[in-house]
Amino acid sequence: MSNADAAKSPYPWRMDDLVSLCARRGFIFPSSEIYGGINGFWDYGPLGVELKNNLKALWWQRVVRERDDVEGLDSSIICHPRTWEASGHVEHFSDPMVDCRACKKRFRADQLDDAGPCPAREGTSEHDFTEVRRFNLMLKTFIGASEDAAAVAYLRAETCQSIFTDFRRVKDTSRQKIPFGIAQIGKAFRNEINPRNFTFRSREFEQAELEFFIHPSEREKWFAHWLDERQRFHRELGFTADRLRIRAHAPDELAHYAKAAADIEFLFPFGWQEIEGVHDRGDWDLRRHTEYSGKDLSVTDEETKERFTPMVIETSVGIDRTALALLVHGYEEQTLPDGETRTLLRLHPALAPIKVAVLPLSKKLAEPAQKLALELRRRFTTFYDESGNIGRRYRRQDEVGTPFCVTYDFESGTDGKVTVRERDAMAQDRISLEGVQAYLRDRLEVVL
Amino acid sequence: MSNADAAKSPYPWRMDDLVSLCARRGFIFPSSEIYGGINGFWDYGPLGVELKNNLKALWWQRVVRERDDVEGLDSSIICHPRTWEASGHVEHFSDPMVDCRACKKRFRADQLDDAGPCPAREGTSEHDFTEVRRFNLMLKTFIGASEDAAAVAYLRAETCQSIFTDFRRVKDTSRQKIPFGIAQIGKAFRNEINPRNFTFRSREFEQAELEFFIHPSEREKWFAHWLDERQRFHRELGFTADRLRIRAHAPDELAHYAKAAADIEFLFPFGWQEIEGVHDRGDWDLRRHTEYSGKDLSVTDEETKERFTPMVIETSVGIDRTALALLVHGYEEQTLPDGETRTLLRLHPALAPIKVAVLPLSKKLAEPAQKLALELRRRFTTFYDESGNIGRRYRRQDEVGTPFCVTYDFESGTDGKVTVRERDAMAQDRISLEGVQAYLRDRLEVVL
Repeated sequence: MSNADAAKSPYPWRMDDLVSLCARRGFIFPSSEIYGGINGFWDYGPLGVELKNNLKALWWQRVVRERDDVEGLDSSIICHPRTWEASGHVEHFSDPMVDCRACKKRFRADQLDDAGPCPAREGTSEHDFTEVRRFNLMLKTFIGASEDAAAVAYLRAETCQSIFTDFRRVKDTSRQKIPFGIAQIGKAFRNEINPRNFTFRSREFEQAELEFFIHPSEREKWFAHWLDERQRFHRELGFTADRLRIRAHAPDELAHYAKAAADIEFLFPFGWQEIEGVHDRGDWDLRRHTEYSGKDLSVTDEETKERFTPMVIETSVGIDRTALALLVHGYEEQTLPDGETRTLLRLHPALAPIKVAVLPLSKKLAEPAQKLALELRRRFTTFYDESGNIGRRYRRQDEVGTPFCVTYDFESGTDGKVTVRERDAMAQDRISLEGVQAYLRDRLEVVL
Repeated sequence: MSNADAAKSPYPWRMDDLVSLCARRGFIFPSSEIYGGINGFWDYGPLGVELKNNLKALWWQRVVRERDDVEGLDSSIICHPRTWEASGHVEHFSDPMVDCRACKKRFRADQLDDAGPCPAREGTSEHDFTEVRRFNLMLKTFIGASEDAAAVAYLRAETCQSIFTDFRRVKDTSRQKIPFGIAQIGKAFRNEINPRNFTFRSREFEQAELEFFIHPSEREKWFAHWLDERQRFHRELGFTADRLRIRAHAPDELAHYAKAAADIEFLFPFGWQEIEGVHDRGDWDLRRHTEYSGKDLSVTDEETKERFTPMVIETSVGIDRTALALLVHGYEEQTLPDGETRTLLRLHPALAPIKVAVLPLSKKLAEPAQKLALELRRRFTTFYDESGNIGRRYRRQDEVGTPFCVTYDFESGTDGKVTVRERDAMAQDRISLEGVQAYLRDRLEVVL
């Protein structure tokens, strides 16, 4: 983040506070922390994995399960290396890079603003850069028993290429006809020279991609459809209009094969950044894989008998980036009317890692409260907490986004009722014990 | 599979028939098929990904969400390379390997039965083997901008190591006390010399692992608890007692640090094979990571003030192997009373990729039938099929394990009823259109 961006941060809190909350409460922390971490790799803790899984489940529900024109796929991370020759990644997927001859550090040539002064050239405060070279971002490995060139393989740099290589197999087995799509969620890897902005730019990340195959005459219609659908999805997550925008690519930004492209951007503390791309990829990918594999990937229109290579509209969303956007959007340091402050994470209830916390007012009430927690846990992710004063226990749930707290008090045993407190308005409802399941179901299962 | 095993196959069908069904109907097929495949890597198609996701969701539900003493985790596939020095993988995770000097093929020294005759030494029918060497099974890659040794990293060979390195962070953030567990589902990679038996032994695979941290005095109790729990899980999947067995490791099979270990084995067409391992790993892992990181991973008993390094009971199940076992267990070529045959996949309804198929008796009934499919699709994975005779459409659903078919016929418009056909018994119920949702929900949501 440049200083100019930091100054303009639209949020009245520091990014470091959110990063610290994520580590302290077990959302996200550095991979291999006890070994000093590994740059660009992150682990999702107990709350982070639930948030991410809920987000992935919602995407799968909306994009795959609720539609009759989209099929799912789960392909291997390592695939045949010819895939990456056909896709152009072996030749072109690189960043421009320079080294400093003095301090031996490496920088992206297009990000030299972030280089800082060279520690080995005191007094000049400038680096001694080499010429710009290209640096391929794919992670390489070796399959089989030797490290010779024949066995080189790559960790996929994007999940979509397998969708193209599996296109015919999926189309034939699912008996779909154009227009239809293939969707996949999975890990991808890029050897970023300079990972940064928490999980935003990391070396291992998760994508949710849809490739929608269409007749060439329908490109504009389907591009508009999917751009609209994907905006709707992000609005459904709770992102408000002031923090979400569409940035259409100018003609000179487009890849040579693309007819149109737009980024869906979210307003992070470090500026407007892409969380999803919607691209008209044309027939580039299927044509390239046809050329490299010798396999025909064209289709025949059953009515007109026209034979054509389908065009592709792609929607590609970063799961880690969207999860980060959810944390940023939900994070709030709130001053209450009584002067107290609380940290709040306003997550959509369907995405919240913990759905309900069960809190006995005293440890003496542990037994019936635990019984309630046990019942709720079969259906909802339920947290049980009996220690500390009730206000503090509410605050602990507020800062991890738990939408409902159920308090079991000294009256509950006699009147058969508990108090349900809602996170955002802090409003309290007194409801019957038997009614808790239904009360929560009505409020939590709206989306899924 | 050796000839001896094949002869003993307990199944009245050939493994090839199941492999062929998987490709033909889009469960599982070779990765990068159009490039000739890549040995040991598989893609899950539209039906396969649903089966696998359902299986993972059930494991997560039973092991993490329904328990208050297990926390989830989702760590990076690439972690700090010191992890694999501490775990012993860099030094010891290898297979014995020989090369044939004549035909240049490579074999596992412990599997020379499968070597076949050497094509380059006709007349002798024997190979000319080199001495046995050790071959490390971890896949290596390079992080950062150079391929020098400092940047070497590995694709994880098992998901559990991050559970150990993240142990303190997860314990502190979740405020759990011993005994408690950390669970994770994710990809792991092993450079198998000889991938085989369809997806059973592949180079990229998915594990669901639980590491349960306990006081040393409770090893036997918790080992028994988890062995029991995990058997119960496999029985819940529908595996019958004749195809599931426990094989306790003999003392001389145990790793030097292990006190007890047992495999849960399933009867595949290629013999009894491990689908899950339950292991008492002692304090080996936490001690090694303490030694290599210099970080204290011991805990204090709050009551006795005793300080100790927890012992670990591990349950580790192969998701791909269990998915394959589900396909094997469910597959049946059935002769019906009328002499007709049908292929059947008896999958547990909660695991079936498609929950319900909506079939109009005639294309003239497409409109109301599609309306019903649209409604059902919001809650259940729903397939709509209007082409071909109804018997053939039933068969197509039977062979992919769809538990219910709903037929909309010429009466439905007037009496407001449809026919629901159950897969296994082929029994038919006539029920009202408004009742279909509830009918299916009662029969499909038993488990989850």
